[in-house]
Amino acid sequence: MSRRQPPPPHCARSYVFWGGREGYQSLLNTSPRRELDHMARFLQMAVDHKKSLGATYQLLIEPKPREPSAHQYDYDAQTVMGFLKHYGLDKDFKVNIEPNHTTLAGHSFEHDIIMSSKFGYLGSIDANTGTPELGWDTDQFCMDPKKAAFVMYAVIEQGGLAPGVLNFDAKVRRESTDVEDLFIAHAAGMDTFARGLRAAAAIKADGSLDKWVKERYASFDTGLGAKVEAGKSSFADCEKFVLDKGEAKRTSGQQEKYEQ
Amino acid sequence: MSRRQPPPPHCARSYVFWGGREGYQSLLNTSPRRELDHMARFLQMAVDHKKSLGATYQLLIEPKPREPSAHQYDYDAQTVMGFLKHYGLDKDFKVNIEPNHTTLAGHSFEHDIIMSSKFGYLGSIDANTGTPELGWDTDQFCMDPKKAAFVMYAVIEQGGLAPGVLNFDAKVRRESTDVEDLFIAHAAGMDTFARGLRAAAAIKADGSLDKWVKERYASFDTGLGAKVEAGKSSFADCEKFVLDKGEAKRTSGQQEKYEQ
Amino acid sequence: MSRRQPPPPHCARSYVFWGGREGYQSLLNTSPRRELDHMARFLQMAVDHKKSLGATYQLLIEPKPREPSAHQYDYDAQTVMGFLKHYGLDKDFKVNIEPNHTTLAGHSFEHDIIMSSKFGYLGSIDANTGTPELGWDTDQFCMDPKKAAFVMYAVIEQGGLAPGVLNFDAKVRRESTDVEDLFIAHAAGMDTFARGLRAAAAIKADGSLDKWVKERYASFDTGLGAKVEAGKSSFADCEKFVLDKGEAKRTSGQQEKYEQ
Amino acid sequence: MSRRQPPPPHCARSYVFWGGREGYQSLLNTSPRRELDHMARFLQMAVDHKKSLGATYQLLIEPKPREPSAHQYDYDAQTVMGFLKHYGLDKDFKVNIEPNHTTLAGHSFEHDIIMSSKFGYLGSIDANTGTPELGWDTDQFCMDPKKAAFVMYAVIEQGGLAPGVLNFDAKVRRESTDVEDLFIAHAAGMDTFARGLRAAAAIKADGSLDKWVKERYASFDTGLGAKVEAGKSSFADCEKFVLDKGEAKRTSGQQEKYEQ
Repeated sequence: MSRRQPPPPHCARSYVFWGGREGYQSLLNTSPRRELDHMARFLQMAVDHKKSLGATYQLLIEPKPREPSAHQYDYDAQTVMGFLKHYGLDKDFKVNIEPNHTTLAGHSFEHDIIMSSKFGYLGSIDANTGTPELGWDTDQFCMDPKKAAFVMYAVIEQGGLAPGVLNFDAKVRRESTDVEDLFIAHAAGMDTFARGLRAAAAIKADGSLDKWVKERYASFDTGLGAKVEAGKSSFADCEKFVLDKGEAKRTSGQQEKYEQ
Repeated sequence: MSRRQPPPPHCARSYVFWGGREGYQSLLNTSPRRELDHMARFLQMAVDHKKSLGATYQLLIEPKPREPSAHQYDYDAQTVMGFLKHYGLDKDFKVNIEPNHTTLAGHSFEHDIIMSSKFGYLGSIDANTGTPELGWDTDQFCMDPKKAAFVMYAVIEQGGLAPGVLNFDAKVRRESTDVEDLFIAHAAGMDTFARGLRAAAAIKADGSLDKWVKERYASFDTGLGAKVEAGKSSFADCEKFVLDKGEAKRTSGQQEKYEQ
Repeated sequence: MSRRQPPPPHCARSYVFWGGREGYQSLLNTSPRRELDHMARFLQMAVDHKKSLGATYQLLIEPKPREPSAHQYDYDAQTVMGFLKHYGLDKDFKVNIEPNHTTLAGHSFEHDIIMSSKFGYLGSIDANTGTPELGWDTDQFCMDPKKAAFVMYAVIEQGGLAPGVLNFDAKVRRESTDVEDLFIAHAAGMDTFARGLRAAAAIKADGSLDKWVKERYASFDTGLGAKVEAGKSSFADCEKFVLDKGEAKRTSGQQEKYEQ
Repeated sequence: MSRRQPPPPHCARSYVFWGGREGYQSLLNTSPRRELDHMARFLQMAVDHKKSLGATYQLLIEPKPREPSAHQYDYDAQTVMGFLKHYGLDKDFKVNIEPNHTTLAGHSFEHDIIMSSKFGYLGSIDANTGTPELGWDTDQFCMDPKKAAFVMYAVIEQGGLAPGVLNFDAKVRRESTDVEDLFIAHAAGMDTFARGLRAAAAIKADGSLDKWVKERYASFDTGLGAKVEAGKSSFADCEKFVLDKGEAKRTSGQQEKYEQ
């Protein structure tokens, strides 16, 4: 279930569970509820074991929708977060996101990074990418600064990733058979995330994106919106508001402005 | 957010929230955490409203991954179940599964039916199907008795669906322009689920499938397996077990036998 | 490029070229036109070699969209047929269709069977299937009589497949580790196609499906429709027809009736 | 079948046939061979009509795999090119490529641009893009200079696109409801292709990419490779070559170097 040997407890910082074989090939021969109960029990034993060692490393689960199993239980970040919550393991585990797994689950590259970060579960990142139109995991080096900027922006927003890391679990392509390719791939991969981090920091420093988003949600900062957020509103309040004020002017999403 | 007008409270049995527009087009202009907080608040208001009416109908959420939004918050059954758990709404809501939405999220037709059923969330079913190779929702009538049998088997296993129903939210195809087509489509759709129910009941009465699955998990019914299920085992117990007994004989998954 | 050793020329009946590595990983480092020119040259050498042997076996190409290459030149049946036509190889090659490759190219299971058959290119069939929601090739045994009936119906319509065959290139699933599984898989796979053939023969003998389709296209059997088919019509004829007769009554596609 | 009214013959430059409804919903009720024969006849009538007018505009077909039909006959560039060749229409038609249609057919964004260009069929381009993880056509403005550079590089390589154009058939997103969004979208879309063209021109002027690709195929420029390209080689020549020289050193594909 785990693919990396843990370092001795006194120096380990993170321990990732990758459940690529923890899934089913067919629901006909499987009792998925019993399997998930067992998986939760296994992870609880890992938590108990860590405590018995007095260890402090962060336990992490790496979501992936499938491959080699036809369907993995750790489908994506939110499936894992719901599982951890259901079995009372949410205090002991975070997630390690590999964005190409996210795309295989039908989300955009940065989706699981952002969703796990905003709910406090983002613990570490695998800096790989995939080939968009393929239905399997290619673990390539990421060469797209735009994607890297998305990822690093989320890391900045949550105040860093430590003790987690940006892990290069990527491979050169099958056709890249020269030793030189290994060198170029690692250098270019690191450069890409460095450029992404610079771009993300510049966007953050500029502040426009933050300001635009804040303005878009401004109606929740005062009046009825603020009451809704505080959990002090009812349908009757909403009905009264609409009858008093009329239907709100629709605010444009301005997607083109943001993308530009 | 809801697509069906509720009947008067004295006769309503189910009320479905379909959040097809509750999603984002771009994460750049969106604060997904704030959106989910708002959605939870809205649903809590619906629960409060229901209580203030003294109503007893079942509230339901219908998962769908996208369309018309680029990415819907109610992606699939497990995402919804995790959301309900996170916001403390899991006692008040169940899910209404439309299996063609499930396939659009990258799962097999019956996946969300089974996953929600086994965790006590399956409240109602939309009896539609899609066209497998298309990336959007076609809401066709289901003409495949094998798929219907899978669905009805899960319904039998959980002891029925009431007050939920098998809802025909399906449409005839665009090219089907005769009045007769409507008649044939509904009759064939109902026949398909009737045949599926008969097949599922026969499989259940026969008992072989149940027996095979039970045998596959037999090692968890006694000894160390039973201790694991009861939450009374540790890594030390597992280590001792393997050292004493040697590695277990691998049991074949026998997928072909089940499918046949 | 070929995966099977040819039998001695005096007994061979078919020879399949499977070009799974004849594709590109990236268009950046590839000259696709030059690659296709080379592939055509290689196949022409194979034709010349066969002639020099005095051999009579059928040469076949097996389309597949990708895996292991990121993008294969033999993407699907129609891509191969267009390639053969462009390079003047269409008299010397037919195609060997594996329907799970077809689904990976975004078509329905039977699409390439029918498209190649109707243009005289269907030479042999691999009797495998895939797992619908997976993005790679699983080469499973087909257990769905409905799909098998579709395939066998096309074979009946073209008057058989000889010298081609129904080839079981399928594997048992990774979890199926008993010897018994191999036996069950082959028996069930053959049974499925036998049931499919019986169903297809019954549908053919019944004649309703043929009759319905014939009626749907009846307007092309006489009058202007027949002139169109014969290549003797012009836009002026069509304009005159519409002005004389008014717009035609739309005929329902009746998809539900056919599926039922 | 065509979505744009032709301008008067004296000024028209291009005429695009978009066959979005020229496909099938189900193969059960369809005779695909007869449909393709009819489509070819229709297009031949269009050619005859153009000639009778003495018109000189370019006729174009725009490939698309599906939507609104479940499966369109004009699936992708190579399917269309094969169809034109089969029916003897290849001298009279070119293709108009919309790269987001290409991704819906399972290829990368630039695939159909390059494949049609290298065989002399690229006549015009729709400058739209899609949202990668969606299974339908969103016709967005393209904001990715890297993708635009790929497209413009192919245009440079074939010496321009005239009389074809870069057509903005894109729409602002549903949520973009301000008039300002329309302005921003068009300006940013045009800027993206301008930046793409500059990047492509710089890459071309630099010459490294061309040189690397030329070197990769260098073995086909002399000796046996040149004989193969000239159609003057046989299997016997190849066998002799390998026996004489031993197996060739494998050349690395160096994908990472190219992507960087």
